[in-house]
Amino acid sequence: MPAASAPDTLGGIGETATLGRILPRLPQADAALVGPGDDAAVMRAPDGRYVVTTDTMVHGPDFRLAWSSPFDLGWKAAATNLSDVAAMGAVPTALVVALVAPAHTPVADLEQLADGLREACGVLAPGCGVVGGDLSVSETFTIAVTAFGDLQDRAPVLRSGARPGDVVAVAGRLGLAATGLRLLFADGVDADGVPDATIARSLSEAHPAELGAQLAPVPPIRLGPVAARAGATAMLDVSDGLAIDARRIAAASGVALDLDTTAVAGVAGEGVDPRVALSGGEDHALLATFPAEGALPEGFVPIGRVAAGAGLLVDGRAFDGRGGWDPYADWDGGVG
Amino acid sequence: MPAASAPDTLGGIGETATLGRILPRLPQADAALVGPGDDAAVMRAPDGRYVVTTDTMVHGPDFRLAWSSPFDLGWKAAATNLSDVAAMGAVPTALVVALVAPAHTPVADLEQLADGLREACGVLAPGCGVVGGDLSVSETFTIAVTAFGDLQDRAPVLRSGARPGDVVAVAGRLGLAATGLRLLFADGVDADGVPDATIARSLSEAHPAELGAQLAPVPPIRLGPVAARAGATAMLDVSDGLAIDARRIAAASGVALDLDTTAVAGVAGEGVDPRVALSGGEDHALLATFPAEGALPEGFVPIGRVAAGAGLLVDGRAFDGRGGWDPYADWDGGVG
Repeated sequence: MPAASAPDTLGGIGETATLGRILPRLPQADAALVGPGDDAAVMRAPDGRYVVTTDTMVHGPDFRLAWSSPFDLGWKAAATNLSDVAAMGAVPTALVVALVAPAHTPVADLEQLADGLREACGVLAPGCGVVGGDLSVSETFTIAVTAFGDLQDRAPVLRSGARPGDVVAVAGRLGLAATGLRLLFADGVDADGVPDATIARSLSEAHPAELGAQLAPVPPIRLGPVAARAGATAMLDVSDGLAIDARRIAAASGVALDLDTTAVAGVAGEGVDPRVALSGGEDHALLATFPAEGALPEGFVPIGRVAAGAGLLVDGRAFDGRGGWDPYADWDGGVG
Repeated sequence: MPAASAPDTLGGIGETATLGRILPRLPQADAALVGPGDDAAVMRAPDGRYVVTTDTMVHGPDFRLAWSSPFDLGWKAAATNLSDVAAMGAVPTALVVALVAPAHTPVADLEQLADGLREACGVLAPGCGVVGGDLSVSETFTIAVTAFGDLQDRAPVLRSGARPGDVVAVAGRLGLAATGLRLLFADGVDADGVPDATIARSLSEAHPAELGAQLAPVPPIRLGPVAARAGATAMLDVSDGLAIDARRIAAASGVALDLDTTAVAGVAGEGVDPRVALSGGEDHALLATFPAEGALPEGFVPIGRVAAGAGLLVDGRAFDGRGGWDPYADWDGGVG
């Protein structure tokens, strides 16, 4: 009987063989005229425009392998980029993925990461596929995704279109992802404060909504184009926290956003401290403004009003509270 | 008199302030309808299609900060991606740049990197600009660029269109970049074998063509669309070495490529060993096949013929020699 062999690693079998195992697991894009395998892909842009956004996840500040499964990583890398496309009012069409991993990374992990990319596209944005990528070796596990979308002949929904009198509304739940991260930092570590996979698994069973929102978020991608069709005047993806992102719409539009505490508490995740709903990052909810006269589209809940002025108000008073995640201020450089 | 202060670093001034210093240095894209600053950019695709490619440079396997200036890094990250766009026969229109750097990185270095991106676009692909990006902190300096192009109503030039009888031709010089890398590994290090900036500077003065080709290549971007207009049947960017990349065209097209040693020596860089011209990576020359009946377009030099069969021949005989750069096999994991 042969001895159990060590698992294949990226460094052990090399780039070409690893790609041969990853590529068949990736989703194909309906809008690809030429897919992966040449110097570049060729994509359809039916209305003569395309939307493009990029976002990177770095081991350490953005994720820990002790907490995220490879499947979660692939899912989250896709979901967060798809959310930026949706926030323009566009339908996601494709991703390219630059994957940079240590040589000792098991190929099975990269296969599961590919599965996460595929499942996220399939669930959140059917028809969206991976049309290109790059695989490199590095001491720091890093995933850089660039995502594309189709505006379907509509104008993009920018941050700059909010007008006094508009309704401020949210699709998605707020504060769960930040609560999940706090739980992981507080309780997902061993006695020395090092992130621990076994402890995190039990934590995940005890708090599935919070850890799920943090590790494998399900943003309301489909509702981005829905909001655009309903006449949204401004929209963004709430990635750095409601307070920070509401200020961004206010600044870009030259208006004030006035949020209602009770309404914000109403869109907070179950059991989430309303202050965390206001400050917590990585929600990947959609924050949008709509004309006051119309009905809000499905999935959007009113949380405030656009007013003349500048900056963020909460219950009519200027709100200076910090919110959100700054990798420079917030990352402690810890291991795990 | 105040003491000289320490230079600003990415970690010291944070992401927002660093972006404020980088963004004004980046080139604008003529084809951008919505540029950086929203959830996503919106790009024009005049013929209803766009070309997309991505390539990553990682500190260690792909570059050493002791050898490359930050300007060189920005230049090379742009140039290598522009080359993949050109190899489809497309005109480069835009880049998005995911930059991941250690917290101690001087902001001045990132400004110079932005200058390198700008100058490469300006020189190699006027009108091409940076339409989005991401800045993150990591222990490993990494630059992931995604590039876009416009096919201008032409069919893309794939790897798969070469036909027996076609002429094989190259635009650009071969072997200089690999020679430059060998010089750096042999002589650009201190007594302990660690890459050394001062030694590399003198080496660069002694061998400007070789080190220039390695550290800040000038691919013939403009000639990609020229080749497409001239009826190129197949084309790619010679990034992994002529032998490897010629085999790729052969495999994709179901033909053999037969290269002529004397002709290959004629397109080798000055003073380059002809064997290195065949095997060396990172040339970013354009390798293309053209119908035998027409004249070759400007800048392309014949180096062989397409034949029935499979694989790579040199002077009519099967060539099994290895060529090119595999980061898993070739990177020694050394420091510097």
